[in-house]
Amino acid sequence: MPTILGQNQYGKAENRVVKITRDGDTHHIKDLNVSVALSGDMDDVHYSGSNANVLPTDTTKNTVYAFAKEHGIESAEQFGIHLARHFVTSQEPIHRARIRIEEYSWERIATSDANSKFIGSDEVRHSFARKGQELRTTQITFDGENWEVISGLKDLTVMNSTNSEFWGYVKDKYTTLKEAYDRILCTDVSAAWRYNWTSDEERMPNWEKSYEQAKKHILQAFAETYSLSLQQTLYQMGSRVINSRSEIDEIRFSLPNNHHFLVDLEPFGLKNDNEVYFAADRPYGLIEATILRDGVEPRIPVDMTNL
Amino acid sequence: MPTILGQNQYGKAENRVVKITRDGDTHHIKDLNVSVALSGDMDDVHYSGSNANVLPTDTTKNTVYAFAKEHGIESAEQFGIHLARHFVTSQEPIHRARIRIEEYSWERIATSDANSKFIGSDEVRHSFARKGQELRTTQITFDGENWEVISGLKDLTVMNSTNSEFWGYVKDKYTTLKEAYDRILCTDVSAAWRYNWTSDEERMPNWEKSYEQAKKHILQAFAETYSLSLQQTLYQMGSRVINSRSEIDEIRFSLPNNHHFLVDLEPFGLKNDNEVYFAADRPYGLIEATILRDGVEPRIPVDMTNL
Amino acid sequence: MPTILGQNQYGKAENRVVKITRDGDTHHIKDLNVSVALSGDMDDVHYSGSNANVLPTDTTKNTVYAFAKEHGIESAEQFGIHLARHFVTSQEPIHRARIRIEEYSWERIATSDANSKFIGSDEVRHSFARKGQELRTTQITFDGENWEVISGLKDLTVMNSTNSEFWGYVKDKYTTLKEAYDRILCTDVSAAWRYNWTSDEERMPNWEKSYEQAKKHILQAFAETYSLSLQQTLYQMGSRVINSRSEIDEIRFSLPNNHHFLVDLEPFGLKNDNEVYFAADRPYGLIEATILRDGVEPRIPVDMTNL
Amino acid sequence: MPTILGQNQYGKAENRVVKITRDGDTHHIKDLNVSVALSGDMDDVHYSGSNANVLPTDTTKNTVYAFAKEHGIESAEQFGIHLARHFVTSQEPIHRARIRIEEYSWERIATSDANSKFIGSDEVRHSFARKGQELRTTQITFDGENWEVISGLKDLTVMNSTNSEFWGYVKDKYTTLKEAYDRILCTDVSAAWRYNWTSDEERMPNWEKSYEQAKKHILQAFAETYSLSLQQTLYQMGSRVINSRSEIDEIRFSLPNNHHFLVDLEPFGLKNDNEVYFAADRPYGLIEATILRDGVEPRIPVDMTNL
Repeated sequence: MPTILGQNQYGKAENRVVKITRDGDTHHIKDLNVSVALSGDMDDVHYSGSNANVLPTDTTKNTVYAFAKEHGIESAEQFGIHLARHFVTSQEPIHRARIRIEEYSWERIATSDANSKFIGSDEVRHSFARKGQELRTTQITFDGENWEVISGLKDLTVMNSTNSEFWGYVKDKYTTLKEAYDRILCTDVSAAWRYNWTSDEERMPNWEKSYEQAKKHILQAFAETYSLSLQQTLYQMGSRVINSRSEIDEIRFSLPNNHHFLVDLEPFGLKNDNEVYFAADRPYGLIEATILRDGVEPRIPVDMTNL
Repeated sequence: MPTILGQNQYGKAENRVVKITRDGDTHHIKDLNVSVALSGDMDDVHYSGSNANVLPTDTTKNTVYAFAKEHGIESAEQFGIHLARHFVTSQEPIHRARIRIEEYSWERIATSDANSKFIGSDEVRHSFARKGQELRTTQITFDGENWEVISGLKDLTVMNSTNSEFWGYVKDKYTTLKEAYDRILCTDVSAAWRYNWTSDEERMPNWEKSYEQAKKHILQAFAETYSLSLQQTLYQMGSRVINSRSEIDEIRFSLPNNHHFLVDLEPFGLKNDNEVYFAADRPYGLIEATILRDGVEPRIPVDMTNL
Repeated sequence: MPTILGQNQYGKAENRVVKITRDGDTHHIKDLNVSVALSGDMDDVHYSGSNANVLPTDTTKNTVYAFAKEHGIESAEQFGIHLARHFVTSQEPIHRARIRIEEYSWERIATSDANSKFIGSDEVRHSFARKGQELRTTQITFDGENWEVISGLKDLTVMNSTNSEFWGYVKDKYTTLKEAYDRILCTDVSAAWRYNWTSDEERMPNWEKSYEQAKKHILQAFAETYSLSLQQTLYQMGSRVINSRSEIDEIRFSLPNNHHFLVDLEPFGLKNDNEVYFAADRPYGLIEATILRDGVEPRIPVDMTNL
Repeated sequence: MPTILGQNQYGKAENRVVKITRDGDTHHIKDLNVSVALSGDMDDVHYSGSNANVLPTDTTKNTVYAFAKEHGIESAEQFGIHLARHFVTSQEPIHRARIRIEEYSWERIATSDANSKFIGSDEVRHSFARKGQELRTTQITFDGENWEVISGLKDLTVMNSTNSEFWGYVKDKYTTLKEAYDRILCTDVSAAWRYNWTSDEERMPNWEKSYEQAKKHILQAFAETYSLSLQQTLYQMGSRVINSRSEIDEIRFSLPNNHHFLVDLEPFGLKNDNEVYFAADRPYGLIEATILRDGVEPRIPVDMTNL
């Protein structure tokens, strides 16, 4: 046989599960998109089509829904850990499970009675609007022994309307760009950070708080950095997360430079004093980097965030 | 000539303009996507290709950017009114202008110093995150005499986790649906409302406040309605807007019924007590209707919101 | 009651139905996305939530699938006619049905034996690749008496690399565009044409042939027109369809002008002799118009094709 | 400094370049989307914001357009090789360049004169329609010494309407799936194959022919395999490419199982004899694997194709 099988995995992708928890009249939502990928003794199904070692992807889907009931969804990370442990420990041919989850956030709709602030008002506690800002993500990997948890976010669009410059760069024969001493800096943050929790022996991070804090540090570092390059801003964002959160050892960003070009209004006898911009689609700069706690080995795949 | 020209229009679509206004260190953003459509004496350009009556679409684009400087962007509606008036009054062959605008909302990033609440703290006032919730829309039409302003929003996803039923419907030979006495109701609100302001003689509405209030009434009516059908909820949403806002005479909704199916967990020995749902993509119910102030003629095109 | 109900409709949207027809070992596919919208005596469901007149959207979905078996899918148009007739004639409260269908085309995969051309070769007759070019569309409306069929296509991207000019246009104070005597003309054709078949008394068009011919005429008119404006090309495309197909009375186009800007290579000492272009995303010109057989009343809604 | 910089890269992404080549009246198109990612001595720009080693992303964009003129675009692969070589050899701080390219295919529009087949007919040779089927891709990486070329395709949707089964799988407590002895098999092929060409000393493959042949083998293996699992089909597709093309050593697939569920028509008194299917969106099975020539080290990143 002149060809052989390399890395392979399979499972049901994009299982959309919504879990409602009722605390009296007060309801809570978890809204997830769960993808399962399993690996192990799977040579036969590729070579001969024998499914003797194959737990159907339909079963992995059923398991997602059953586990939402059996274990609840405390956090996307905790839910993924339950799933990954189950597949690896319950099926002998499965040696490794990777669970990827996207989470949509919802906020309560403020109702008129809520605004009235009278005691006894019937505030509605089961109505929600989807926040729509960033997508929260996590990836849980388990090989029967060690855990790897890489969480993050996508499509968090941020803009500084000043405090950004770009000059002093290399100029070759194809360089026409003019130096900029006050420009808009705008990007859609995609970030993935790796937790140093790897074993059931260790105390698990507080996943919800950790997410909220990592997002806060990313936003604040973006806002507070006087930027000479998007790379510098990226490093500040990553370094602030690592320095503030001891449970996180590594973070990788993929940051498009969403160009906002100052429109030339001189042909119309107008002066554009950093006021009117054209927001361009393509092309865009794309800046990607990993920031690590000193002494730590990088493990976030380079191709997990880039394009 | 056996064929003739019917309704026609042209212009530059999707001009992405970002306007920064500086109030000392405090910056403000308006972020719009502006589409221009002009009509008038345009037979020749279709029949013979003569551009003698054609203001280039490139010029309509330039005008959008120049007007952002000359008039500022107080609101999407006000900006559209400036543009529509200009095209109709400055070019003899142009008899009608329609400006469509989508607006992206931004919120300030809260910085650490802002949290410290000390006098003299250097809160960052030029950093923003895109809200990402609904898209705000408006359409301004001007024929040289009368104005029509239809504003609205798109993709505002809302969910009630209870207080929704569906029963007592027609059953024919293709009906298999079981009646529901407690279901999730979830939709992506698309709404378009028409203002009764039509003339420069009349006092113009406060577009920003009107938008904010219309959105609030839609959300609250959604939350507070005990729903026997999505049509009933739709009517309550529309009727609350018309009744609360005297400047609005007509509103049209397009509401997908984003089905959340209760997952059957019995095969796994589990009881699903309205807890675990599968959020389906397609197909979806689609409910559309116009609500009018009594005595008013409908003018919002049916095909503006539906699919 | 200060508010009243205006135009309204409801139904199940985006029912994805695939029908396989077996002619021995030779299989045929029809792959449709069917949306149902019904109107009639529907006041109560909006005002009080009574569903007594409401055939559930779930039932309209079931009907789509059942009809694929009962009637087959000869063409999207014929299938929509079966559905619309059924809803209007079988349910007293339903006075009008509108069926919208998108159709995906597939082509056979040529297999190795097919290439061998030997008698008796086992050519595979059940394997297909999706064509991926344009999306075919149709909209069938029936009010119990008259039919309206508006068919068309979307996203058929075409380009002429020469034989396009643009000059002689109006110049105002915001005009900076330079005249062009040899430019690329590129657009994504969206077209909707109305058949003059309106009654069961009349002979029905051959929907499949009519579609194929209309598409051919659009493509050829695009290719063969020496263009002084996209409006002129649009008119030629429409007029050729009307003149060649007696069953079609009206056609409406929405044509983005997908700008291809000649890149300025002079800073690099290079001459760009209409060779290297930047394909821009936004903004784009948008040209829309209806072409009619002389003497015919326009009926295609303006807002069906535009943005 | 408690944090350090890990892998990083930057460049301009999604440069849309269209190149027209004129052979008399016969024109040819190449339509590419080119993304540049450069790595090297880039610590300073991250740590301090010094751009002294940074060739601007704007310059990398200019280089793409200039090279389309200077070198032409013989194939996406050849064009990427020119670019990668240039960045690494012309800028001392740049040690590695990765060029990713997506290619859109166009076909000629057949014009009426072309159909007439008369000598001297004026067939139009500058009019094109975008094919719209698969997206062709390539990734070129160069470190100053060795080349890596990974080409492929995306979104090639294929379907077998029979000759697919699925049974004999593992059943656990969450398994409810029924075995299938005749099902539809449908997937959107994403494939990435690695060429064994790595050095300027070796003879370069014929990139255009190699792409065409790899696609043909993938399609034919899909059509000709009687499938007991999508994994088996995947292996057959990969193995046929490796066995038929000596210039390719490794191929990785990501294949969603686009479920087509047989609709239950029994409630309507109808028998569904493998005729009417519901084409589901989410969730979907996702099958991914690498196939290698025996003895070869895998190099295609696992995260390049999966979700």
